[in-house]
Amino acid sequence: MMFFEGSEKKVEAVLEPGQPSLRQLGRPFWAKIVAQANAEILSSVHNDCCDAYLLSESSLFVWDDRFLMLTCGTTTLVHAVTEFLTHFSQDRLAMLTYQRKNEYQAHLQKSCFSDDLASLAPHLQGQAWRFGHLDGHHNYLFHLERPYQPAADDATGELLMYHIAGENADYLRSDQQTLDGIRERFNWEQLLPGFQLDDFLFQPFGYSMNGIRDDRYVTVHITPQEESSYVSFESNLPVEELVPIFNALLKVLQPQSYDLISFNMACDLAHRPEAIRIDHAEQSLANGYRMAFEHYLLPGHEVRAADQL
Amino acid sequence: MMFFEGSEKKVEAVLEPGQPSLRQLGRPFWAKIVAQANAEILSSVHNDCCDAYLLSESSLFVWDDRFLMLTCGTTTLVHAVTEFLTHFSQDRLAMLTYQRKNEYQAHLQKSCFSDDLASLAPHLQGQAWRFGHLDGHHNYLFHLERPYQPAADDATGELLMYHIAGENADYLRSDQQTLDGIRERFNWEQLLPGFQLDDFLFQPFGYSMNGIRDDRYVTVHITPQEESSYVSFESNLPVEELVPIFNALLKVLQPQSYDLISFNMACDLAHRPEAIRIDHAEQSLANGYRMAFEHYLLPGHEVRAADQL
Repeated sequence: MMFFEGSEKKVEAVLEPGQPSLRQLGRPFWAKIVAQANAEILSSVHNDCCDAYLLSESSLFVWDDRFLMLTCGTTTLVHAVTEFLTHFSQDRLAMLTYQRKNEYQAHLQKSCFSDDLASLAPHLQGQAWRFGHLDGHHNYLFHLERPYQPAADDATGELLMYHIAGENADYLRSDQQTLDGIRERFNWEQLLPGFQLDDFLFQPFGYSMNGIRDDRYVTVHITPQEESSYVSFESNLPVEELVPIFNALLKVLQPQSYDLISFNMACDLAHRPEAIRIDHAEQSLANGYRMAFEHYLLPGHEVRAADQL
Repeated sequence: MMFFEGSEKKVEAVLEPGQPSLRQLGRPFWAKIVAQANAEILSSVHNDCCDAYLLSESSLFVWDDRFLMLTCGTTTLVHAVTEFLTHFSQDRLAMLTYQRKNEYQAHLQKSCFSDDLASLAPHLQGQAWRFGHLDGHHNYLFHLERPYQPAADDATGELLMYHIAGENADYLRSDQQTLDGIRERFNWEQLLPGFQLDDFLFQPFGYSMNGIRDDRYVTVHITPQEESSYVSFESNLPVEELVPIFNALLKVLQPQSYDLISFNMACDLAHRPEAIRIDHAEQSLANGYRMAFEHYLLPGHEVRAADQL
């Protein structure tokens, strides 16, 4: 079995007013931050608000006053965070969150969430939470403990899809796939009007895409490998634009289970009737966000064979 | 949070005919095997067929021609197996299985299943399987690749219960609990007539019990800690005796999820109507056993708060 851990770690930070622009720091600064996580910049797109970098393992978005970085595999995102904190210490930050999803193979990771907390502790005072049971899908969040008032349009939705199935999943696992073929199957042109896209097809499989439109972003990462398939999509689009995209993704990818995570956003998706919400946790955080975690599953009705290792 | 990993690793081995009795090797031999796993013998009971040792972390049962050892926590059962194999090499074994359950916190373990396979590889030719999806509950099994014909009454059932709830769960987490109180709540006397029992209450919580009757065994291990509670019960009792016990345990402990694992046994339990079978895998193995894995879950209907770490 060819295994790749698709589940991402994620950091998002906002500067206090009056700081220099994060975009002005330029690509060399961010390349150094990214390198700390054991990733590298593959390509980028830019508009008036945002620089979007596609990474060897996921994505980095930089605005003037904030940045967002996602990395997967066995990357060490926490080292990128501590490197950033040597330049921008806690008192220059208005907000910081550090998030980890549960992994398929936690023991292959270079650190666990509590190790990461120990790495952050000398730099940041904060609170840490777990959404969801330890033995099922769950999501860890650490946040800087500082009052913060997110803007009215500052909301994020994440859809994490596991065990994708059907014709499109087969295509994403095949050696026939092309960038054009993937774009068509997802129908990005229709789903993401006005977005400037930057995508990449990895060998032998795997697809990443960043998109920006003004200060809005979308990012998708696909690990199609059978037995450990994983597709994530996240965005700060308004909920009325995001929900139809999430619904389209569920149709295209037919995941056997999926997690829906949101910050200051109530996502009411068109779940299939047989989908069961296994877990649901919500928490208002001291940084002004309400985070929600929902884990959905479509129970299998067939007796499967065991997987030979 | 006080965390203890209840999930067990398990080994079972049967000697080829004509070998010396494993029981005759005596307690010093087995104490040495147990020590390799970083466990120790706490107490024992004996009858004409079997020596049952209660361990600091789980259990060991020794018959003349076979043994079964279960260990939990961060024990290294695989080292106990390789130590045993220095005394009884592959050609003296009729059957060997090595099993691992998914852990709450896999990254805290000293080895993962594939590490264990690498430790066994110099000693044993075998096959390895995974029952259940990687991102949900699952069970790993390795077995010696050798034709074997289990006796007609050689069948095993394992019930693994997670997130126990209700009055009895509260009692098991309280500092009021006593051995007598636990025995009464489980009603061992009625459930296990004719069994010789040996049980132990750990500080500040945790309960283990071995029982033997002729060549039949039962063993139960309780890790009651909130957020990572786990109770396992396994036995080679005939299915008609075992099913009522499993049903009673589900009533007493009200687990939010449970796994049912069986070898050459079809267990038809009285599941609560809201219980959903999330996963079901079965496989006929080259050693003559048919192994079945079922994962059940009772979906929560409430929005929970996040767990602060």
